[in-house]
Amino acid sequence: MDATEFRKRGKEMVDYVADYLEKIEKRQVFPDVEPGYLRSLIPDCAPQDPESFEDVFKDIEKIIMPGVTHWHSPYFFAYFPSASSFPALLADMLCGGIGCVGFSWAASPACTELETVMLDWLGKMLNLPEEFLAGKDGQGGGVIQGSASEATLVALLAARTKTIRRVQSENPELTEADIMGRLVAYASDQAHSSVERAALISGVKMKSIPADDTFTVCGSALKKVLDEDKAAGLIPLFFCATLGTTPCCSFDKLLELGPICNKENIWMHIDAAYAGSAFICPEFRHFLNGVEFADSFNFNPHKWLLVNFDCSAMWVKKRSDLICAFKLEPLYLQHDHQESGLITDYRHWQIPLGRRFRSLKLWFVLRMYGVKGLQEHIRKHVRLSHQFEHLVLQDERFEICAEVVLGLVCFRLKGSNELNKALLKSINEAKKIHLVPCHLREKFVLRFAICSRTVESTHVKFAWQHISQLATELLKTWEQNHHQQ
Amino acid sequence: MDATEFRKRGKEMVDYVADYLEKIEKRQVFPDVEPGYLRSLIPDCAPQDPESFEDVFKDIEKIIMPGVTHWHSPYFFAYFPSASSFPALLADMLCGGIGCVGFSWAASPACTELETVMLDWLGKMLNLPEEFLAGKDGQGGGVIQGSASEATLVALLAARTKTIRRVQSENPELTEADIMGRLVAYASDQAHSSVERAALISGVKMKSIPADDTFTVCGSALKKVLDEDKAAGLIPLFFCATLGTTPCCSFDKLLELGPICNKENIWMHIDAAYAGSAFICPEFRHFLNGVEFADSFNFNPHKWLLVNFDCSAMWVKKRSDLICAFKLEPLYLQHDHQESGLITDYRHWQIPLGRRFRSLKLWFVLRMYGVKGLQEHIRKHVRLSHQFEHLVLQDERFEICAEVVLGLVCFRLKGSNELNKALLKSINEAKKIHLVPCHLREKFVLRFAICSRTVESTHVKFAWQHISQLATELLKTWEQNHHQQ
Ligand SMILES: Cc1ncc(COP(=O)(O)O)c(C=O)c1O
Ligand SMILES: Cc1ncc(COP(=O)(O)O)c(C=O)c1O
Repeated sequence: MDATEFRKRGKEMVDYVADYLEKIEKRQVFPDVEPGYLRSLIPDCAPQDPESFEDVFKDIEKIIMPGVTHWHSPYFFAYFPSASSFPALLADMLCGGIGCVGFSWAASPACTELETVMLDWLGKMLNLPEEFLAGKDGQGGGVIQGSASEATLVALLAARTKTIRRVQSENPELTEADIMGRLVAYASDQAHSSVERAALISGVKMKSIPADDTFTVCGSALKKVLDEDKAAGLIPLFFCATLGTTPCCSFDKLLELGPICNKENIWMHIDAAYAGSAFICPEFRHFLNGVEFADSFNFNPHKWLLVNFDCSAMWVKKRSDLICAFKLEPLYLQHDHQESGLITDYRHWQIPLGRRFRSLKLWFVLRMYGVKGLQEHIRKHVRLSHQFEHLVLQDERFEICAEVVLGLVCFRLKGSNELNKALLKSINEAKKIHLVPCHLREKFVLRFAICSRTVESTHVKFAWQHISQLATELLKTWEQNHHQQ
Repeated sequence: MDATEFRKRGKEMVDYVADYLEKIEKRQVFPDVEPGYLRSLIPDCAPQDPESFEDVFKDIEKIIMPGVTHWHSPYFFAYFPSASSFPALLADMLCGGIGCVGFSWAASPACTELETVMLDWLGKMLNLPEEFLAGKDGQGGGVIQGSASEATLVALLAARTKTIRRVQSENPELTEADIMGRLVAYASDQAHSSVERAALISGVKMKSIPADDTFTVCGSALKKVLDEDKAAGLIPLFFCATLGTTPCCSFDKLLELGPICNKENIWMHIDAAYAGSAFICPEFRHFLNGVEFADSFNFNPHKWLLVNFDCSAMWVKKRSDLICAFKLEPLYLQHDHQESGLITDYRHWQIPLGRRFRSLKLWFVLRMYGVKGLQEHIRKHVRLSHQFEHLVLQDERFEICAEVVLGLVCFRLKGSNELNKALLKSINEAKKIHLVPCHLREKFVLRFAICSRTVESTHVKFAWQHISQLATELLKTWEQNHHQQ
């Protein structure tokens, strides 16, 4: 395929994508396929000779689409949103076309520099403390990670190196292995599994801090565990605070936790993967109060800020902390400007070496929506979740299981976990909408997350009527079965 | 921006990308900008109100392009190639449009299933042993990682868990911390820095195995270090063999190393990030002989197989080894089919949670080039590197520093490292072509890597004439300075 054919096919693909997104509502949100469906539809091995674009293109509807879960359908209410917008798609086309690999400044200066400046823009939108911005000669700054999981891991690795050095300088008799065996990291028992995973990867012990009745970790809960652990000779090094937990979007109390971490030499990382986008609205910014105590902060524009996956924004107060956890410098990666101090080599900030020109997506989206357009998007989702909450509250059979703050509603039928599992099963088997569950303490709970960019009040109303009707049907047979027993 | 405007702007972007790639030769391969150039060209913060696409689009040439290193210019001979092709660009547009997040089978079945089947296709193209393929019910299989760095890390983490369990079951008196402190991983002293980094991240000691005069690690070199380390009470757990080292594209001797690793319970991972693509050609496949002894194998289609970044292909013999290193299972990520055994949940195979529909790129490229088309691409690059080698050999002032096997030529002026540094400086300051250096033992060496998909014999000839002319100029002044001293 040459540039001439690419012009033609590229335009066909633009139309295909536009059609797909324009009419996505008409597709069944969750596919009918059974595991293994795809293998039987395609050949056993790659063709020896080239096939035409037409042949490949035809197979998209025949082979791929029947197995796609449509994350951008307005009937998709599962997990958390995965962002999608037209400006981001355009930027990603450009990113692919340029196809540079930005592991160092010299490998493509624009790729590095736009990222630094975009993270400053975004940091200002969130009203992050000055220390987190790169500015012209700041010690902090931002970076785009592929995922929140990686951001947490990178923060923990930086904390690990920093703590080992500090403890070793205070206790020269201790070996690195001695110290490693005593390190312990913390997060809420409501934290995302990626935090435990980061601890597993880095070989650091991990303990859960019990959240309170509102699924929030407060200062005293952390303090209690810290005191016990220190008395037992452990070395606390890392606390991951969650703003917007995955199960029910609760918020840890930064203003209580931060000062404790600072006093105890504990690296505080903030994981606001989903909720962080909302902090661009002044009315939600207060959840971030206390960020000034944190060492690093992360949220995913690829969740809720209309920037397509992958774009996870991370800031640190001291970039040297990250770099020290990683820096290795073979000759073929060195370049002239290296000693100037002006240069950022992002490979020292992340797990992979290679990196795409992802900041283009941020640039396009921030400019083409403007701060106001993005605030509107957030506010609309929050309005819709409150609409759903009100519908649930009007039905005596149901209960709301956690405070509705942003775009997530946790709800359930008053009754057993089995009953609620049966309800979820009937919802997902009908395939008119798609939801996933969570556990809140011992309760099995349904999560209703406002996800799609194009979801409207009518979709939410439809979803509720559908759920409530399935509940009516379920309760009928459920009671019969119950009576028969 | 709505779908209607996206249709229009998307087509403009397709033309822009086509123009960019068609005429890339006319752009200066390496930019003129100084560090910090970009910040002064754009506002301090994001706009409150939306800007038009036209305004953003204009800024691409004004702000971005002046700072881009053009990796796809036929005058780019630096690092290793970063793949780019039109079919891959089309597939990435589709991937962005669908915008699903494939962390589990249910999150989008097509995303997971196409990946499994494409990795089988690719594995067959490389003639990988059956055990590495997923097939209908194999124990092995492939996965797309974001980068070779991540593949190595994931392999090392799997080895770590496996070894700790084995040693603990043999020596119940040892704690995990005891074992961790004695683990040691190995790779060639020519291995990529990402291997050392993986060891750093996972908290495992790492030792270099000295390569021989041809920059190759052979069995006896590994054996010697192993014997010493075991005698000193260390526990060897991991050896990363490199096929196609970054400095000079040398190949570790799998057939000698593999049996040693198997006998000593050492996980053998193969990093063939660049060279792996060549193994689709029968004449280069012999370098992979011995892969049957490996536990995991990885190469980057995003380097040399015309699949745009990011697409790093990794295979394991036992998928359960990866999964055991990671598996954590919160409720909101569970789904019905989970216990069927047919399901692959790729989040257990990787560092991040989220993942894009990257296998579409492989599917498009493998079908639209066909195996023969891809073989042609590899062979053309190998021919061009031999052409360059011959040009160098005809010039008595120069020497070739390592055997030229694939698309990389390591060469230098016969003379001091300072002389060669000066030559590289004059090449990169002229900005007609772009190269990066490496060290081979104590020698400073220039690397000439055939990179662009569109590079032809004429570009190689031009590059050589240019280098040789700069060498002539340099040698003149160099000798004068030398005489003056
Ligand atoms: C609070 C929180 N942290 C982390 C993650 C993981 O995000 P990623 O896929 O970017 O690693 C999620 C995903 O839902 C999340 O909700
Ligand atoms: C042999 C080798 N391994 C690993 C890598 C790192 O690749 P990635 O950017 O995919 O992590 C490279 C990059 O050049 C390489 O040459």
